Amino acid sequence: MDNSLAKIHLSVDCTVLGFNGNRLEVLLIRRTGEEGGKEFHDMKLPGSLILDQEELDDAARRVLTELTGLKNIPLQQFRAFGSMSRTKDPKDVHWLERAQQAHVTRIVTVAYVALVKIGRTITRDLEGSEALWVPVDALPQLAFDHNEIIAAALDHLRNGAVTDPSVLYALLPRKFTVTQLRTLYEVVFGVKLDAANFYKKMTQMPYVVALEEREKGVAHRAARYFRFDKNAYNKTRL
Amino acid sequence: MDNSLAKIHLSVDCTVLGFNGNRLEVLLIRRTGEEGGKEFHDMKLPGSLILDQEELDDAARRVLTELTGLKNIPLQQFRAFGSMSRTKDPKDVHWLERAQQAHVTRIVTVAYVALVKIGRTITRDLEGSEALWVPVDALPQLAFDHNEIIAAALDHLRNGAVTDPSVLYALLPRKFTVTQLRTLYEVVFGVKLDAANFYKKMTQMPYVVALEEREKGVAHRAARYFRFDKNAYNKTRL
Repeated sequence: MDNSLAKIHLSVDCTVLGFNGNRLEVLLIRRTGEEGGKEFHDMKLPGSLILDQEELDDAARRVLTELTGLKNIPLQQFRAFGSMSRTKDPKDVHWLERAQQAHVTRIVTVAYVALVKIGRTITRDLEGSEALWVPVDALPQLAFDHNEIIAAALDHLRNGAVTDPSVLYALLPRKFTVTQLRTLYEVVFGVKLDAANFYKKMTQMPYVVALEEREKGVAHRAARYFRFDKNAYNKTRL
Repeated sequence: MDNSLAKIHLSVDCTVLGFNGNRLEVLLIRRTGEEGGKEFHDMKLPGSLILDQEELDDAARRVLTELTGLKNIPLQQFRAFGSMSRTKDPKDVHWLERAQQAHVTRIVTVAYVALVKIGRTITRDLEGSEALWVPVDALPQLAFDHNEIIAAALDHLRNGAVTDPSVLYALLPRKFTVTQLRTLYEVVFGVKLDAANFYKKMTQMPYVVALEEREKGVAHRAARYFRFDKNAYNKTRL
């Protein structure tokens, strides 16, 4: 065993997850680099090295705002990634060294996750940034270990939702249809659910409350809206 | 804002929590240092800097085993602590620099937490180490920000137990009495519970199963044992 201590750089990376009604999506930013004299274009999570006097949570918020324009996103630390293999691709190391004017060997990143509602507010805030939504089931090869970080964030969401289904409602609009809720369960847990059974199960959830309001301007029969009731939910926890 | 990048060392710290039947305890190790020409004695979490080629999880397991003798402890990352103020006490910096023969400025630590059963097995494994159990409600001032890390681990346990009470049973013996379970709820949530009400609530938990067996060799009326049924528990999650 090599007993020398690790000399590292520290970064933060933000995994912002949303639900577009059909699929889970993650917020990525475009990256342009140069390797072997040729320009390349790919994508990465919004993230960067932290500054000298900066707290971790402050760094995550700063970096997300600088790269995407988003503010007040409920970022939560979920795991540090520190494998030596994070910098196995010279392309990533060269890109970072050019961007940071620093020699880079090992980079430990503190990963944050946020669940957001994809809607008008967030779409407006993203305007003019290099950020874009990409479906998590159709990701290309990303920079560093960002595919792995996103996979871990999805595991985190899935495991969290098993014991605490309330987290899922952060991904839905405030008013949602049974089809939206069922589709979200399907994509989070990677299963196909029977619509009638799911509806029956949903009616047993005292925290999913039917509204009087229905969808408007749809070609099919207008579906009823439901909302999540946090107080009723908390009473179901023993 | 100072735009220079943070140059840091990385460590792991392990917060091993147990329940002694009356109180929550944390596993600490004794530290001897010298400051201003005088020897001092205090305590810290089992932790250390990670090595150059070492993965984070491997480092946590190695350090815990080296310092406490414990193996196969279900350590889970729960948060990175990276504030500049972690090294505000020169005593800590000097101690670490002597121990590591390295100049230390900022140290980011990846904190792990484990919930264990305090019993014969763990007591035997700890023999001959510098580790000891200390009640979390009577901690002295510890090294670095270790009081803060323990407080955060307790919050993590408390918040986790609200949505997923099954985590609490990792702290109890496999067979437990209603008094033990009630006391654990009391110390985790910092409340005093009425015994009769708690018993009634417990009988509504389909996953707490009464055994035929009762306590042996006790002065008071022998209490019945219960066990946690993970399968029954999983069925209660909607």
